[in-house]
Amino acid sequence: MINDEISDNMRLHGVLTKEKYVKHLSVDCTIFSVQDARLKVLLLNWQDVEYWSLPGGFVKEDEDLDEAARRILYERTYLDNIFLEQFHTFGKVDRTSLKLSKDFLKARNLTFPDDHWLFERFISAGYCSLVDYTQISVFPRYNNESGKWFDLDKLPKLAFDHKEIVKKGSEYIRKNIDTQIAASNLLPEKFTMNELQSVYEAVLGENFRRNNFQRKILAMNFLERLEKLYDGSANKAPYLYRFRDVR
Amino acid sequence: MINDEISDNMRLHGVLTKEKYVKHLSVDCTIFSVQDARLKVLLLNWQDVEYWSLPGGFVKEDEDLDEAARRILYERTYLDNIFLEQFHTFGKVDRTSLKLSKDFLKARNLTFPDDHWLFERFISAGYCSLVDYTQISVFPRYNNESGKWFDLDKLPKLAFDHKEIVKKGSEYIRKNIDTQIAASNLLPEKFTMNELQSVYEAVLGENFRRNNFQRKILAMNFLERLEKLYDGSANKAPYLYRFRDVR
Repeated sequence: MINDEISDNMRLHGVLTKEKYVKHLSVDCTIFSVQDARLKVLLLNWQDVEYWSLPGGFVKEDEDLDEAARRILYERTYLDNIFLEQFHTFGKVDRTSLKLSKDFLKARNLTFPDDHWLFERFISAGYCSLVDYTQISVFPRYNNESGKWFDLDKLPKLAFDHKEIVKKGSEYIRKNIDTQIAASNLLPEKFTMNELQSVYEAVLGENFRRNNFQRKILAMNFLERLEKLYDGSANKAPYLYRFRDVR
Repeated sequence: MINDEISDNMRLHGVLTKEKYVKHLSVDCTIFSVQDARLKVLLLNWQDVEYWSLPGGFVKEDEDLDEAARRILYERTYLDNIFLEQFHTFGKVDRTSLKLSKDFLKARNLTFPDDHWLFERFISAGYCSLVDYTQISVFPRYNNESGKWFDLDKLPKLAFDHKEIVKKGSEYIRKNIDTQIAASNLLPEKFTMNELQSVYEAVLGENFRRNNFQRKILAMNFLERLEKLYDGSANKAPYLYRFRDVR
C-alpha cells in the first residue's frame, strides 16, 4: 500500500514533468447523480488536505479540449462513455491560489520550482454530466484520494473557485434537464411516468403535481408511450414510456 | 491615410510584442443583429485578405476572461455596454492555421519569428450578443479593415473554425432568445405584441400564428402589459408591453 502510494506519486511527478500540456488551461468536471431523491455532486479529496475539489486535470498539446475532458474524467474516476457536455469556462485572474496548489502537491510529497507552469494562472473549462452513481464501482484512481457524493447545499470546503463551478454546472444540468435525463441512464430503458417524475423532482429540487407534470412532459413530445401487454390480470399496470432519441 | 495605416500597424506590432498576454488563449465574439427581418452576424475583413473573421483578440495576464471579452469587442468594433455572454470554448487541436495567421499579419506588414506565441495552438472562448445594429456608428477601429453584417446562410469564407463558432453562437442566441431579446435594445422600451413577434420571427427564422405566439409569450410571464391611455379616439390602439427585469 505504501509502495503503491509512492509509485503513484512518482508517476504523477513524471507525468507533470515530461508530458507536454497546454499551459494556463485546465478542465474541471462536475458530475451529478441522484441519490436519496436528491441531486448530488461528485467531489474528490486527497488525504491530509482540508479542501475538496472537482475531478480535473490538464490538456495535452496534441489533444482536443473535449478529448482531454473525457480522458481526465476517466483518469480521475474511471467514468467512461458518458454524455459529457462543456458548460462554461472560468477565467477570473485570481481563481486559483498558489498556496493551495502547493498544499495539494505537498500532500503527495511532490515539489516543483516556484516558476513551474503549475503555479501560473489557469483558465478552466467546465464539463458536466448526469450519471447513474451505481454504475461507478471503482473510484478514484489514486491511493490516498477519496471520492464522495455531496448534497448541493451541504458542500464541504472547496478548492479555488470550485464552488462557483459546481453552481454553474448544476444550473446547466437543470436548464438542460430533458436532454440530460434522457442521456443519463438514470432510468431503465422503459419507465413509468412516476419514475420519470421522481428523477425530475430530484434534479430540480421541487415537487410537481402529477397531472401537471404528465401534461407538460407529454407536450414536449420526446417520450414514446409503449403498448401495454395484456397479462391476464386486471389491467392496472401503468403505461411504460421510453425516450425518443434526443441527443 | 497612409500614415494612419502605418501607425496603426506599428501600434499593433508594439502591442503584440510588449503587452503580456495569456498564451494559447483567445476570445472571439459573435455579434448578432436583426436587419431586413433576418438575423445577421457581424464579420470583419482586412484588406487583401480573402477570409473574413469574427472580432477577436487576446487575454491580458492581469484581466479576467469576461473583462477581456468586453475590451476586445470594444477595441475591434467600439461596441460598449452591451449584454455579452460566454457561450462555448473552442479547443480543437487544429482549429487555427499557421499559414492563415501569417497571411493576416502580412496584410498589415507585420512579421514575427516562427516560434512566436502567436503561431502556437489557441483555445478560443466564444462570447455572443444580440444588438441593435443602428447603434453601431463607427466600426471597425483599424483603417484597412472593414466590417459588414452577413446573413447566416450567406456567409463569406471564414477564417479558422469561425464558421462553427458562428453556428454555435446563433444556436445559443436562439435557445436563450427571451433573455437575449429583453437585453438587446432591439425593441423600444414599450412595444406592441406585433413588434415583439417580428423580432422573434427574425431571430428564429420562422413565422408564428399570431394567437399562438401571444398565448405562449404571455404564459412565460416576463412581459408587463401597460394600461392604455384613453386619448379620445376610438379605442383601437394595440396594447403596449414592456419587459420585466429578466437579466
